[in-house]
Amino acid sequence: MAGNSFGQLFRLTTFGESHGKALGGIIDGCPAGMTLDLEKIQEELNRRKPGQSAIVTQRKEPDTVEIYSGVFEGQTTGTPIGFAIHNTNQKSKDYSHIKDSYRPSHADYVYDKKYGFRDYRGGGRSSARETASRVVAGAIAKQFLSDIKINAFVSQVGEMKLNKPYQELDFSMIESNAVRCPDTEMAQKMEDYIKSIKKEGDTIGGVITCVIQNVPIGLGEPVFDKLHARLGEAMLSINAVKGFEYGSGFAGVAMRGSEHNDAFNTDGTTKTNRSGGVQGGISNGMDIYFSVAFKPVATVLQSYETINKEGEKVTTQGKGRHDPCVVPRAVPIVEAMAALVLADYTLLARTNKI
Amino acid sequence: MAGNSFGQLFRLTTFGESHGKALGGIIDGCPAGMTLDLEKIQEELNRRKPGQSAIVTQRKEPDTVEIYSGVFEGQTTGTPIGFAIHNTNQKSKDYSHIKDSYRPSHADYVYDKKYGFRDYRGGGRSSARETASRVVAGAIAKQFLSDIKINAFVSQVGEMKLNKPYQELDFSMIESNAVRCPDTEMAQKMEDYIKSIKKEGDTIGGVITCVIQNVPIGLGEPVFDKLHARLGEAMLSINAVKGFEYGSGFAGVAMRGSEHNDAFNTDGTTKTNRSGGVQGGISNGMDIYFSVAFKPVATVLQSYETINKEGEKVTTQGKGRHDPCVVPRAVPIVEAMAALVLADYTLLARTNKI
Amino acid sequence: MAGNSFGQLFRLTTFGESHGKALGGIIDGCPAGMTLDLEKIQEELNRRKPGQSAIVTQRKEPDTVEIYSGVFEGQTTGTPIGFAIHNTNQKSKDYSHIKDSYRPSHADYVYDKKYGFRDYRGGGRSSARETASRVVAGAIAKQFLSDIKINAFVSQVGEMKLNKPYQELDFSMIESNAVRCPDTEMAQKMEDYIKSIKKEGDTIGGVITCVIQNVPIGLGEPVFDKLHARLGEAMLSINAVKGFEYGSGFAGVAMRGSEHNDAFNTDGTTKTNRSGGVQGGISNGMDIYFSVAFKPVATVLQSYETINKEGEKVTTQGKGRHDPCVVPRAVPIVEAMAALVLADYTLLARTNKI
Amino acid sequence: MAGNSFGQLFRLTTFGESHGKALGGIIDGCPAGMTLDLEKIQEELNRRKPGQSAIVTQRKEPDTVEIYSGVFEGQTTGTPIGFAIHNTNQKSKDYSHIKDSYRPSHADYVYDKKYGFRDYRGGGRSSARETASRVVAGAIAKQFLSDIKINAFVSQVGEMKLNKPYQELDFSMIESNAVRCPDTEMAQKMEDYIKSIKKEGDTIGGVITCVIQNVPIGLGEPVFDKLHARLGEAMLSINAVKGFEYGSGFAGVAMRGSEHNDAFNTDGTTKTNRSGGVQGGISNGMDIYFSVAFKPVATVLQSYETINKEGEKVTTQGKGRHDPCVVPRAVPIVEAMAALVLADYTLLARTNKI
Repeated sequence: MAGNSFGQLFRLTTFGESHGKALGGIIDGCPAGMTLDLEKIQEELNRRKPGQSAIVTQRKEPDTVEIYSGVFEGQTTGTPIGFAIHNTNQKSKDYSHIKDSYRPSHADYVYDKKYGFRDYRGGGRSSARETASRVVAGAIAKQFLSDIKINAFVSQVGEMKLNKPYQELDFSMIESNAVRCPDTEMAQKMEDYIKSIKKEGDTIGGVITCVIQNVPIGLGEPVFDKLHARLGEAMLSINAVKGFEYGSGFAGVAMRGSEHNDAFNTDGTTKTNRSGGVQGGISNGMDIYFSVAFKPVATVLQSYETINKEGEKVTTQGKGRHDPCVVPRAVPIVEAMAALVLADYTLLARTNKI
Repeated sequence: MAGNSFGQLFRLTTFGESHGKALGGIIDGCPAGMTLDLEKIQEELNRRKPGQSAIVTQRKEPDTVEIYSGVFEGQTTGTPIGFAIHNTNQKSKDYSHIKDSYRPSHADYVYDKKYGFRDYRGGGRSSARETASRVVAGAIAKQFLSDIKINAFVSQVGEMKLNKPYQELDFSMIESNAVRCPDTEMAQKMEDYIKSIKKEGDTIGGVITCVIQNVPIGLGEPVFDKLHARLGEAMLSINAVKGFEYGSGFAGVAMRGSEHNDAFNTDGTTKTNRSGGVQGGISNGMDIYFSVAFKPVATVLQSYETINKEGEKVTTQGKGRHDPCVVPRAVPIVEAMAALVLADYTLLARTNKI
Repeated sequence: MAGNSFGQLFRLTTFGESHGKALGGIIDGCPAGMTLDLEKIQEELNRRKPGQSAIVTQRKEPDTVEIYSGVFEGQTTGTPIGFAIHNTNQKSKDYSHIKDSYRPSHADYVYDKKYGFRDYRGGGRSSARETASRVVAGAIAKQFLSDIKINAFVSQVGEMKLNKPYQELDFSMIESNAVRCPDTEMAQKMEDYIKSIKKEGDTIGGVITCVIQNVPIGLGEPVFDKLHARLGEAMLSINAVKGFEYGSGFAGVAMRGSEHNDAFNTDGTTKTNRSGGVQGGISNGMDIYFSVAFKPVATVLQSYETINKEGEKVTTQGKGRHDPCVVPRAVPIVEAMAALVLADYTLLARTNKI
Repeated sequence: MAGNSFGQLFRLTTFGESHGKALGGIIDGCPAGMTLDLEKIQEELNRRKPGQSAIVTQRKEPDTVEIYSGVFEGQTTGTPIGFAIHNTNQKSKDYSHIKDSYRPSHADYVYDKKYGFRDYRGGGRSSARETASRVVAGAIAKQFLSDIKINAFVSQVGEMKLNKPYQELDFSMIESNAVRCPDTEMAQKMEDYIKSIKKEGDTIGGVITCVIQNVPIGLGEPVFDKLHARLGEAMLSINAVKGFEYGSGFAGVAMRGSEHNDAFNTDGTTKTNRSGGVQGGISNGMDIYFSVAFKPVATVLQSYETINKEGEKVTTQGKGRHDPCVVPRAVPIVEAMAALVLADYTLLARTNKI
């Protein structure tokens, strides 16, 4: 199968290039009888929208979603939900300068080699603009999940790392600042830092942490489709992601079994949660938490040397309107992908027992 | 779909519990006309086999694979390859003590909750014994890949971290020691450390790094099935894995775009390789490298308090023959899963162009 | 998986209800580098369009397709092709009379029972209007197949059966008449018959025969995904289809092996072709031919007794603009589904050998 | 995906050649907590076994199934059920005469062309022996379905057709004769006829009709995965099948809508059942019935002319132990495939509503 579908029972298939007529997708398998709040979908899109603050790209895109099917009289009908977001602000000329050259650490070169040629307008399909469709689907998945709470936030920008355990954070503060870090003091530092990076025409990486609460026991399909494996795949499929860890993650490596093991309480919960809410690929009812590493955006507004299609050296100047740091806008994308995974596994779990 | 299949075109489906009659699988989609070296398959199995050294479990299992179909006169026929490994050394009594109680940080509890009851003999399906089938399939995938070189090795045990870039390592030394670390000096330290941990009846975590060389340009299927996303899923589906990073990984977060970007040489290769051989989810011809974090084995040979099915506190004593550190035996498993991903994407890549 | 996707590598996913804003789909896996003739796509849509002749529904729908992505500078890019057909002529009031009652031999009742409620406007998703998306995708698949020739035609209407072997027919005459029967004399009889049926406000069934020529040897994936099995599934998924047979079909039952077997010529072709171009689920290079049985359209413009949601008897009157016989408009749908199957298997066949 | 898997949630993957070491499969997705009657599985296998009567092949195969996993203390565990049937009676020499020549209307030629070479022992993978694995899986699916009754029987052999509606038949008589026709008088005629055909070293075709009762309303996944479309694919994937029809089938073509429509009773059942228990691809609670056409077995015990690998004419003599008519032994295979489809859709139906 080509790679533009995600999920098995709650299944999203997307289409669209950054500078095509429209992008969108189809959600197949969304159960019938669900009251759909269209405004909430648009709200999620607005969280990822460009131009929302001083530390993101100033590109202006309304990103208005149009639902074509699968909803009747305010409810899902069980038939596929088709939707589209029409592109209104395609400054293709912004990209004429890269038509014949390959930008370092972009997908330009590999798309050309893999497909024989490419849509050179802003990265085409490889642009993060594609993730808008994921946010639409994720917003619908969130409404299906209802009780399950998914909160993602920025926990690191460059060297600046939020060192508090998530239990000490107030998730209601996430949207209170442009960075989407629930610790307002740290958020301010991160924001100032991103602005200084932007001034230099440079970019910086970051980490998003996601916490999922009120997860029922039993989600996940061993052995290959373990819940955390699918979550990892989902996160790694987001543009610019370089790493994923859940529970104790890479730090757990240095621990001994006797200290790492999560002792049970008599109600089946555990005293600690180094497992990160997943045992053997199946949710155990504790909070699921994981972190996602994003590399610095490749497009720097500086002049750089690269090669053209003929393999000749060329010097070019980064142009266009880009994000100095991708994590603030990636928060709703991380939540959307988590919601898609959980929705899919919630349906799969209905088939485990006779 | 239930979760026991991996891959789309080069597809492995596995079965088997740690203490059942046999475990095995079916490889569907292995191309016809490939000369299959059965000894090489057994060699890979032997790398993962228990009892191979002083720092792994002393359980004795011959782990002999029997091929049932799909091979005729030494060649693959294009029909499914069915295989089985018969269990010969099932000390079920070893597990009687856990029949009614849940081991901390094992899958006992969630299997019970998800399926209504469980095969309590050594974790049943959740046992890492299942990975033997992956090693068989991976060994076949490796033979299909031929030119592509996959080398995994132990790069960290507990706090002991190998800090050399992989380019300075001699992969031919990986199998020269029980730990499977190519740096013999570090390997000795790791081995001594694991032995001391074992003496205490405790366990320790570790990291495996994998390097894939001679990868053709163009493997990977955006947007959801990016090459590194599937690699991440594959690794996270291995027992005890808590994290995955490729290329610059989590460290790349602190870098600026201007320093992180991989500048092109005129032949399309790059001067640096922070991308880890993948751009936009597609291989770019450079080395692919990634790291996988393994938590400490949950079974400690100490007495601990836990709960039984009735939710009552019980004190139990860890028994059985277990690994003090899982990474030495996990090296061939990491390679196997990487081979399965690459074999699948090698076939998919044949369909990209007219 | 929900059932709105078809194909594995050349994969169509559709959305849309008969009276929603739009219907359409996504083709994922169409190879890159294919020059796409958009007019040919519209031509195929026009063959299925309502209002094209006196013997089809007089509903007026322009059925204009809009391509959103996957095509750049006239060529496919290898990225998903998203498309939509906007509904312009939705006479929902036509259906108010069936809002609370179930039409006999329609899907009204089962949709209500399966999903809890239904989009009652003209059958919603169960309307044959959905097949417009299939025709768009099939038109693109046809362009990918290029050399393979697919010709479907009406071979029976009610009792009127075309008894000539397809070899004696001139496929260029198929589009010369409203019925789409290549035998003009029989076509005239069929047309007159359909008109008489229509006058009575009744409907009649028919058979479409499809012939596929220039098929390469080796398409089809045993054992479950045999070429003819997938063709059968594809045809049976079309509204109103009740049967499928290929090669000798049901008539072959009465033959003896000695007369049914297709003897070989020295070039590997066969003297006869009772196999219908498929052996063991794999194309053998001979013409593939099959027949598809369509029941009479369920909507009759007569008064009839049925039940409402409360299970009470109600008498209602068939209204709206419907086809007296579905086969003339179904010809391009049969061709489209055949093209989708062949495109998918053409890509799969690239992966059979090393 | 290669074609050796069937089903989405209740999923069978098979392996094995007619003359390999063993054949078998894996059932993934069978729900946990089901008491499995292993004897019933063997009983179904025995219905399909060679040597069971005078009108089937006299080959002797015990066809004993061995379950490797997925069952513990008599119950399914929710983990994959691996099983194998070891081949004990492989007279490979029987096939030496066809090693270099292609049997007419067999898959020899296409396998050679598709895969580059073939396992020439008795057709290898293309042999109907593969269906033994389907019968094992189907027997397990039947136990899962419990209330749903599936009865298949021989309704035609050559020209001899059973013309009674199935409602007049006593299904308990199906196993009372070697032909598996519930009408004992007709069964005797069919048996005599098959014997006479056998004497001539020839073969004859037949039709199997299947009736499925007590089907809940709502099984089937429009638009592509309609219940009858998947049933058709399932049947067409069985060796030697040339056609499939359900409900009114090909005969319905000649009817008018006013007579074909199934009028409702006030309880939602219908007065007639020309729809065959399926509306719009979804079960409506009425009996599902369909017919499957089988061509005459291609192996005739006569001398015939064919070609060898070099394309030279050769005269050969049909040998081995083959069935003069396949339908008596195909009855349990038809039931098995129907059971697999229904089990899969029973699980899928759990995900339709919130």
